[in-house]
Amino acid sequence: MSSTKTRFLLDEENAPRSYYNLLADLKTPPPPPLHPGTMKPIGPDDLAPLFPKALIQQEVSTERDIEIPEAVREVYRLYRPSPLVRARALEKALGTPAKLYFKYEGVSPTGSHKPNTAIAQAYFNALEGTKRLTTETGAGQWGSSLAFAGQHFGLEVEVFMVRVSYDQKPYRRALMETFGATCIPSPSPRTSFGRQVLERDPQSPGSLGIAISEAVEAVGQKPGSRYALGSVLNHVLLHQTVVGLETMKQLELAGDAPDILVGCTGGGSNFGGFVFPFLGQQLRGGRAVRIVAVEPAACPSLTKGRYAYDFGDTGRMTPLVKMHTLGADFLPAPFHAGGLRYHGMSPLVSHVKELGLIEARAYDQLPCFAAAVQFARTEGIVPAPEASHAVKGAIDLALECKARGEAKTIVFNLCGHGHFDMQAYTDYFAGKLQESTLDPKALESSLGALPTVR
Amino acid sequence: MSSTKTRFLLDEENAPRSYYNLLADLKTPPPPPLHPGTMKPIGPDDLAPLFPKALIQQEVSTERDIEIPEAVREVYRLYRPSPLVRARALEKALGTPAKLYFKYEGVSPTGSHKPNTAIAQAYFNALEGTKRLTTETGAGQWGSSLAFAGQHFGLEVEVFMVRVSYDQKPYRRALMETFGATCIPSPSPRTSFGRQVLERDPQSPGSLGIAISEAVEAVGQKPGSRYALGSVLNHVLLHQTVVGLETMKQLELAGDAPDILVGCTGGGSNFGGFVFPFLGQQLRGGRAVRIVAVEPAACPSLTKGRYAYDFGDTGRMTPLVKMHTLGADFLPAPFHAGGLRYHGMSPLVSHVKELGLIEARAYDQLPCFAAAVQFARTEGIVPAPEASHAVKGAIDLALECKARGEAKTIVFNLCGHGHFDMQAYTDYFAGKLQESTLDPKALESSLGALPTVR
Repeated sequence: MSSTKTRFLLDEENAPRSYYNLLADLKTPPPPPLHPGTMKPIGPDDLAPLFPKALIQQEVSTERDIEIPEAVREVYRLYRPSPLVRARALEKALGTPAKLYFKYEGVSPTGSHKPNTAIAQAYFNALEGTKRLTTETGAGQWGSSLAFAGQHFGLEVEVFMVRVSYDQKPYRRALMETFGATCIPSPSPRTSFGRQVLERDPQSPGSLGIAISEAVEAVGQKPGSRYALGSVLNHVLLHQTVVGLETMKQLELAGDAPDILVGCTGGGSNFGGFVFPFLGQQLRGGRAVRIVAVEPAACPSLTKGRYAYDFGDTGRMTPLVKMHTLGADFLPAPFHAGGLRYHGMSPLVSHVKELGLIEARAYDQLPCFAAAVQFARTEGIVPAPEASHAVKGAIDLALECKARGEAKTIVFNLCGHGHFDMQAYTDYFAGKLQESTLDPKALESSLGALPTVR
Repeated sequence: MSSTKTRFLLDEENAPRSYYNLLADLKTPPPPPLHPGTMKPIGPDDLAPLFPKALIQQEVSTERDIEIPEAVREVYRLYRPSPLVRARALEKALGTPAKLYFKYEGVSPTGSHKPNTAIAQAYFNALEGTKRLTTETGAGQWGSSLAFAGQHFGLEVEVFMVRVSYDQKPYRRALMETFGATCIPSPSPRTSFGRQVLERDPQSPGSLGIAISEAVEAVGQKPGSRYALGSVLNHVLLHQTVVGLETMKQLELAGDAPDILVGCTGGGSNFGGFVFPFLGQQLRGGRAVRIVAVEPAACPSLTKGRYAYDFGDTGRMTPLVKMHTLGADFLPAPFHAGGLRYHGMSPLVSHVKELGLIEARAYDQLPCFAAAVQFARTEGIVPAPEASHAVKGAIDLALECKARGEAKTIVFNLCGHGHFDMQAYTDYFAGKLQESTLDPKALESSLGALPTVR
């Protein structure tokens, strides 16, 4: 029976001690990453210049439970376990018979789920002697998270921030500085790839793909440097499974079980971390759950992309991974959910989509902001523009339940708050935001440039 | 014995069901407010145009426990109980034998303690038929909180925001809009008092005193309007005692008891709400606690003000209250802790200061920002500029413990986060912030203008 409570708090003593690895429960593994030169599957040595060994091992491990080191759990305890909340006020406003729960990752130091992997990555890097981490960031959530994590483990952090977000989100830059990192707008003259892009288009708004190329190139500029990625890769999604694992325990406290899970997808890490533990349970013969990924209509890799081998970055420096992609050259129109502007999708999320284990839908940004405002006024949390996609998805599913008179249990991941994104809300109220529709020609062109893999 | 845990979470079932009223435990009551015309103590009728009866009763009640209505507790459950955190990382960085705990009020919808009273005030107003609330706000924390609370109980909310904060904190305005309120920079041409001020000084940065005058005047501009105050008054501090009451229970969970309590003071509400339950316990013969109020050196009512009858506002419309005041005409130099720019101090906080039950110290803003950055890098929370004063006070006391080798338990109230104040951090890192020292001549002049009361 459902609890009458509103917030379900997990004591730190009951926090997960291991990450959950979906690879252990998948009968068919995802296709391997390929070396861009040889087109052969890459080995650990190919990744060694970029990542510490422990993370490379996690990337390919098929062990189900991977221990979270005590030093990482110690930093998690600054903000985890995060709350699971029954959205009673929103349910009432919607008049839905559905039960709505949200997991709230905005309680972290940087207001999103990103520190969950930043802390782990900083720890494993520090353990193997890394002195400096380079990375890219979209909306700034990842960059500020790595800044915070680097601070805790004594690492220097250098962040290439997508230019359009750098300009739109000055508070995120301030946050990175507060946590002691250096923040550079990308494309930048700091790298040869950045200089190339600027030469072609001095006004380039940038993209995650470009910023990744710059951050990867910057590793070579200083000894003791390694690279950190905030999404897409298996080990990143692995670290994020603390979100789903906690949610499972909290739903038990709530006396409930999920019928539908909803998350927003950019690179796929908050989504994967949230749903994989539930998906694993289902694959092992447990409760079946409907899983819905929500993405922006302006950057719809899962709903409009091609499942194909592609580069992770625009500069074509990374290994080729098989994923839903809009093409590494794809530049989405500027819209406010900077964290969802990636051309590709996590290979693992793409794989489970291909297996038919999850579904996807895309929304324009205006209805997402409307949903976010309704959520703020009822539940008292202003969602990040990225998270507003999950809110919109959950509200729509709750209204579908209402139309059918179904009392389903819907659980969504509110992956972050919008405190550093208030300019987006100002623009929204001022009527300055537009639907950012997809340019079919640009998509055709970037898909046409996909690399050929036998 | 102290718990080994980091965060002490109170279940909503153990949340306080009553507010704690310090007036019940004070042997000598504070001097009564006086009517500005007659100079006689005011009665409930004098306040009736501004406040609903229930709040006027709370203002003068001497009952110890005042029930929190279920409708108010329901909205509290969106974010309360708030966490109590053992600042282990900060302790380690300071190398202090002291134990440092902080109560974290930044988890509220607006990121500070202000909703604790906003929700109660909106509820009691709605109950007595109020349709519209007018108020003032300094940094915007109170205005956004009343906006949120008004939304929940169907009230229109109009906020006069101190001009200097209005300009410095656009994100706070966006937050008020998100919660459906109207925000007007003060001094404004909307009121006759605002027009007077603008005539004398068109560039006036404004002050809380001016904004209060405008908000009080605006009540008369539309039927069904009442006024709400975010600090200073007894009933406001009463509502804030949920902070201290929760902290007491959480310290029990932590297996600890406080030696020193620290809070920052502007109008006195977060400080009073945090310390009064402990002070009451002491007055009833329980554990004695050292209580330290921290205020900005640029607006030092407790350390440099006079304990005298004064107006709450610059327009001299409010009742006269006996308090530590810098004079209702005092305009502090612009500094970043907008919530601490009030010329006076809660009469109840002033009273316990006069009784020698609390002590006070003042800090300049630069060392407060330095303390805030140290706190952010260790504990992962960026404090509001107001809260940074409490952080600085707690750190100094912890270092004093270190110097004396004393393992005291220090508990401070981190009354809010700085997510909407990141411009202040940007300015701090850019070296643009200065010590805002007190102008002795301005103080002399404003103290000279204090009203004469026999």
